Amino acid sequence: MLPYKNLLIIDKNSDQAVFNQIAMQFIHLIQEGKLLPGTPLPSTRALALDLGLHRKTIVAAYESLVASNWVDNLPRKGFIVSPNLPVVRPRSYHNGRIGAYETDPGFEYAQFGSFPYPSSLHQKDEIIIDDGFPDITLLPGHVLLKEYRNALDPVVLKKLSTGWDIEGSSDCRNALCGFLNQTRGIDIKAENLLTTRGAQMAIYIAASLIIKPGDKVIVGDPSYIFANMVFKELGAELIQVPVDSNGMNTEIVEEILKKHRVRLIYIIPHHHHPTTVTMSVERRTHLLRLIKNYQLAVIEDDYDYDFQFQYEPYLPLASGDHGGNIIYIGSLTKVLGAPFRLGYMVAAEKFIHAAATKRMLINLRGDIFTEQVVSSLITGGELTRLIQKANKVYRQRCHFLADLLSTELSDVVELTRPNGGMALWLQFHADLPLTKVLEKASVRGIKMMGSVYSRDNNAPYNALRFGFASLDEADLSKAVGILKTSIRQLK
Amino acid sequence: MLPYKNLLIIDKNSDQAVFNQIAMQFIHLIQEGKLLPGTPLPSTRALALDLGLHRKTIVAAYESLVASNWVDNLPRKGFIVSPNLPVVRPRSYHNGRIGAYETDPGFEYAQFGSFPYPSSLHQKDEIIIDDGFPDITLLPGHVLLKEYRNALDPVVLKKLSTGWDIEGSSDCRNALCGFLNQTRGIDIKAENLLTTRGAQMAIYIAASLIIKPGDKVIVGDPSYIFANMVFKELGAELIQVPVDSNGMNTEIVEEILKKHRVRLIYIIPHHHHPTTVTMSVERRTHLLRLIKNYQLAVIEDDYDYDFQFQYEPYLPLASGDHGGNIIYIGSLTKVLGAPFRLGYMVAAEKFIHAAATKRMLINLRGDIFTEQVVSSLITGGELTRLIQKANKVYRQRCHFLADLLSTELSDVVELTRPNGGMALWLQFHADLPLTKVLEKASVRGIKMMGSVYSRDNNAPYNALRFGFASLDEADLSKAVGILKTSIRQLK
Repeated sequence: MLPYKNLLIIDKNSDQAVFNQIAMQFIHLIQEGKLLPGTPLPSTRALALDLGLHRKTIVAAYESLVASNWVDNLPRKGFIVSPNLPVVRPRSYHNGRIGAYETDPGFEYAQFGSFPYPSSLHQKDEIIIDDGFPDITLLPGHVLLKEYRNALDPVVLKKLSTGWDIEGSSDCRNALCGFLNQTRGIDIKAENLLTTRGAQMAIYIAASLIIKPGDKVIVGDPSYIFANMVFKELGAELIQVPVDSNGMNTEIVEEILKKHRVRLIYIIPHHHHPTTVTMSVERRTHLLRLIKNYQLAVIEDDYDYDFQFQYEPYLPLASGDHGGNIIYIGSLTKVLGAPFRLGYMVAAEKFIHAAATKRMLINLRGDIFTEQVVSSLITGGELTRLIQKANKVYRQRCHFLADLLSTELSDVVELTRPNGGMALWLQFHADLPLTKVLEKASVRGIKMMGSVYSRDNNAPYNALRFGFASLDEADLSKAVGILKTSIRQLK
Repeated sequence: MLPYKNLLIIDKNSDQAVFNQIAMQFIHLIQEGKLLPGTPLPSTRALALDLGLHRKTIVAAYESLVASNWVDNLPRKGFIVSPNLPVVRPRSYHNGRIGAYETDPGFEYAQFGSFPYPSSLHQKDEIIIDDGFPDITLLPGHVLLKEYRNALDPVVLKKLSTGWDIEGSSDCRNALCGFLNQTRGIDIKAENLLTTRGAQMAIYIAASLIIKPGDKVIVGDPSYIFANMVFKELGAELIQVPVDSNGMNTEIVEEILKKHRVRLIYIIPHHHHPTTVTMSVERRTHLLRLIKNYQLAVIEDDYDYDFQFQYEPYLPLASGDHGGNIIYIGSLTKVLGAPFRLGYMVAAEKFIHAAATKRMLINLRGDIFTEQVVSSLITGGELTRLIQKANKVYRQRCHFLADLLSTELSDVVELTRPNGGMALWLQFHADLPLTKVLEKASVRGIKMMGSVYSRDNNAPYNALRFGFASLDEADLSKAVGILKTSIRQLK
């Protein structure tokens, strides 16, 4: 018998169960070649005696090794190191270890084309230009902490644990109904609302209930890339309709509807993504008429309605007369920030019920903890106060950045000052090599996380979204300065 | 001109914008019949003067009314109440109001068959028998509060906000890798792990990458209902393989594999759901061989591995030699409770990358806030301490309940004491009208939230899962007493 007492080190204070420690160390001994295939292991009784452990522990360790195929238990012979190891095992080496995961599994599965995945590795002091996200430092920290403390109260936790509302907690849905009615004129009951993990999940669920492979879906050109990806993933054929300074061209939409059976239209009438334009009254009226005439399913994505810098004449289309055909989608992520994702879907009651069932298959009981915190923020008025505070700050930053760009970069950039939102849409002259500019800027400490379309990268536009909400004036100045230097260097 | 100064009440302290208040009140005047179709509205200048507001505000209100179709803006005539109201509007009445959502939309969409949706309405003092959920009062409240306070620190929030790891935060994935290695002998890198909203999202994502409509999927009989629902929703044909006291019958699996092309097998080798049996070593070894021979995609759902009351000889199949074909799925929900849902998927690196892309389409940036809290709980050792504490308590409750049932109900109930987990599988005599028993028990204050299969409701079994973890001994006694009384009443 090998000197197992020395080979197998048991740490009784370890988090790992003793049987497991023994099993893992046997595996290492086999991997290191100290125990060769076919070698008999000591009897459970002998090893238990040797190590000063209960025999049951050794039995557990051996059975675990048998279950994971390292050891065979032969009639009469007892436990031996599996003789088949050298032949069958090397394929599953990973990182020098046996029994783990290869890079690619042996079965078939859906893969996605290359996608410009964002990277989260930031340099220190890097200025991050995002797609339009809130300034997290505006959050009322003490209020959030209070609400989290309240939600962690055992009585509250117990209530949350035993509850199961498949459309989201009724407290949160009622709070959101009130909020949507006050801010957007949408008059609904809780039965018309489903909570989701951000607007993205609402888009995914709504689209997955509507789209069958081969279905035609109208989207803007350009449009929100993560919505387009969802529709394509569900097998839709996208029909792109130009978005100009008055929003999506509804005359073209009507022409398409006359010729094709369209299953769904995806619109962002308020601060269109990425171009930030707002759809005109005429087109809204026209679109509402088309929606009713064609009984068209509509997803109205209203991701940053809460940020309006002046009297805003446009309520969502969902507050108008659409016969229940508009699925209205929004999110509090743009108010509270990415750590606190809470989205919602507003639609006809039966559609919400189907969507809730789908949500259950994806997210079972939803995010009842965040819902608890958010409903308190709404009913306590903190959400509205935060929106008001943020609007003032963002309005100032918007104009500061727009002024700065007009002064510093008017020879290469065009922009239309939006009446709200969190980002500027910068259209660069067609011959400016935007990708190269951003490479130069990156070296100087600018990280571009937002949407970029560049002609030198085969995009049909030469433009980017510049999120101004999360940067203060000093950082905005610095960012524009770096962009300017990078552009000058390439001209 | 109507006395608008009296009709339109402006509340300058309201959260609702003034233009919006005016628009909403015009809608009410129209709904109440005070303003009839075709009625001209006062000019913006006149109304502004009348109400003592800036004209821009009135313009905004009118344009909002035009956009939502209540008012028309005619050349030369100006703004009039839309003449088409009475004909087109009544269809969209909802709750006595116009302009909202009908019960059913006009377009087609996928609907789900009737499903026994859980209800969250509880009576006071009702004893809730769940499917096997933790006792939330065991959570270390002060530790959780500390971790939430840390996560709400502006520096941490800023880091979370600007990060974007599509597989989940690297801190959390690294912490989980360590935890899985220590507790389950699974040796992986962070690249092999994706975080999800609970195990359910991991099941949904993995299945959606693998299953195409018409594909055959092997599941246990019985099996976890929410997994079966996912597979069916994705168009799979389910092949049910009996699960006996040694787990899923792998001989039958092999027969099926010889005859059919099977795309996926879904297994719960540890504490099978709902029957709580653990798969034997022989069948595990057999199954691992089949997985490799047939290059079969496998979902190993290991939902309550962390709860083991004795030396447990069974490591997950995923820790064995499977050529990267096992997708291992687990969750911390059974440890932390439903308010804190964090699941994970372990698989080959390329599969994880595809799954991360799919997760992005569903949940964009994931739940970075919960991940922050959970990774601190893991690295600080609190998670392990909680599991150890809970195991002691649950073990005691398990035996207490099993003893009680043997004493009180042995004439109608059979059960096998599980070696861990959070629920007992109670098999009632075939002629006991289980649905009726539970109705009687419900009147006496028992709410059944867990899985119930009853013969008097056309199920092939007469059994239920009795979650013992969340109830103390007093409640367990009371629950068994009520069940006994209800059964006696019907015999």
